[in-house]
Amino acid sequence: MTIESERRAFRNQLIEAGILVSTGVDGLYLRSGAFERIVRGVEQYVSRSGSDEAAEQYFFPPITEKASFERTDYIKSFPDLLGVIDIFHGGDEEHAELIFAFERGADWTRDLVSADVVMAPAACHALYPRLTGVLPEGGKRFEVQGYCFRHEPSIDPTRMQSFRMHEFVYVGDPTSAAAYRAKWIDRAEELFTRLALDVEVEEANDPFFGRAGRMLAANQRATALKFEVTCPVSSTQARTAIASANYHESHFGESFDIRTTDGNVAHSACVGFGLERIALALLKEHGLRVDGWPKDVQASLWP
Amino acid sequence: MTIESERRAFRNQLIEAGILVSTGVDGLYLRSGAFERIVRGVEQYVSRSGSDEAAEQYFFPPITEKASFERTDYIKSFPDLLGVIDIFHGGDEEHAELIFAFERGADWTRDLVSADVVMAPAACHALYPRLTGVLPEGGKRFEVQGYCFRHEPSIDPTRMQSFRMHEFVYVGDPTSAAAYRAKWIDRAEELFTRLALDVEVEEANDPFFGRAGRMLAANQRATALKFEVTCPVSSTQARTAIASANYHESHFGESFDIRTTDGNVAHSACVGFGLERIALALLKEHGLRVDGWPKDVQASLWP
Repeated sequence: MTIESERRAFRNQLIEAGILVSTGVDGLYLRSGAFERIVRGVEQYVSRSGSDEAAEQYFFPPITEKASFERTDYIKSFPDLLGVIDIFHGGDEEHAELIFAFERGADWTRDLVSADVVMAPAACHALYPRLTGVLPEGGKRFEVQGYCFRHEPSIDPTRMQSFRMHEFVYVGDPTSAAAYRAKWIDRAEELFTRLALDVEVEEANDPFFGRAGRMLAANQRATALKFEVTCPVSSTQARTAIASANYHESHFGESFDIRTTDGNVAHSACVGFGLERIALALLKEHGLRVDGWPKDVQASLWP
Repeated sequence: MTIESERRAFRNQLIEAGILVSTGVDGLYLRSGAFERIVRGVEQYVSRSGSDEAAEQYFFPPITEKASFERTDYIKSFPDLLGVIDIFHGGDEEHAELIFAFERGADWTRDLVSADVVMAPAACHALYPRLTGVLPEGGKRFEVQGYCFRHEPSIDPTRMQSFRMHEFVYVGDPTSAAAYRAKWIDRAEELFTRLALDVEVEEANDPFFGRAGRMLAANQRATALKFEVTCPVSSTQARTAIASANYHESHFGESFDIRTTDGNVAHSACVGFGLERIALALLKEHGLRVDGWPKDVQASLWP
């Protein structure tokens, strides 16, 4: 079996079992109550593991303000993944034109205009714009979650266009940021091992776009800024990242003018758990019927 | 105090208390862990109240497929509220142009193209396209939830651009659909009364757009298709809908060719609970500190 056909087969299994419901768009599924129960179990399991952090907790809507989005490098680095929201601005006359275009099968979206919101590309991106200024002594710790959008239609069920990222984030001095990432790499590995998932920690790089992107990716890998925890999910031949830990250095600190008490630009690090991917990894490893999962895995997720 | 200034004052209170976090965009907030806990309490409370339904449960992503969206009347009825998602399709050269536009402050979104997904306008809309065909005898019952988008920036914190709708839906014969709506109007009123909210049931109409929309609204009201459960939330002078019950007649049945066993077009009805709005109604009525809420209200939400 090719990787592609393994992925398609896993997707078909999930759909036939009623765990995901096809919408006809690759990467977009309705989720059953059973699937959501797993996602919430993972969410709470991850959340409990970070309770020592005394992190401020935030939940983000699936859209974020365009003005802040433009201050990150996302447009440069990941143009192929972004989603901009267009809206209708007009009166009865413009509306009549819109309907006329729609009814004759023309592109009715052409005269829409950009809203002041865009699709959220990553959970923690909504956080940094709120931190402009000077951090308290020792920096700050956060636990955040939100739906993210990535335009990357795929038949691989682990590659959804809309999915939830659950993150722990540190913003403060460079030494603490690097230590934070290191601690969470170990903790994530341990968390997944307790769920009896076959995980490995790998150096990784973000899928930067295009010719210039290849250099950025090489640089990210060379400086070992990003690690992924991977697991075989939809294919036995290719591993899927189910969590990642990223040291951003001063990237967001500079973009949003965040400083530490000593006046330096703040550094940041985050660990992100892909809630849907972890749910899928569990379904793949332990079977499509949750009541057949190992008792200790069930007890970890739903204590 | 004017209604406007009452609303602004309530928003400021919520932001000062750290319950919502401003993003600089009206109607878009980060939500604190405390706020999310209330939302989840309401979600589970509503869910338990419908456990007699034996409803199939689905959770929807915040985006939905464009092809189905185009088969509803949303473009005609609510163009001012919709959100279309644009994406980048191109290579290095087009990317260079995008960045060039962005860096000189021009509209960098102009050459983006429509994706095959749009913002979900209402939770239950993602359901009907899946039901094309003949329903089982007696119709079907669903419990669904998802983030919805409405482009209606407002300083009223109850009018969010991105919010969750939790719905119970019946699809089947007209008599059962009408009875379903009637049952849920009573049940919703009772649910809110138990939370000590000052609710009223009112005939209502959707905010149809423009000149033609005024006729549609008048017709909806005249035929008493939609009811809202209202409550004073951000103003003492104007009530806010925190739930609504809608009998769609054959609207979705026709759009998606859904039929009952007797060969007729299916009718549908839904009741939608606005999770964020109910959370805000509770915060307004019982105070910004949950541990000061009446004990029986707390026990209902977190048994």
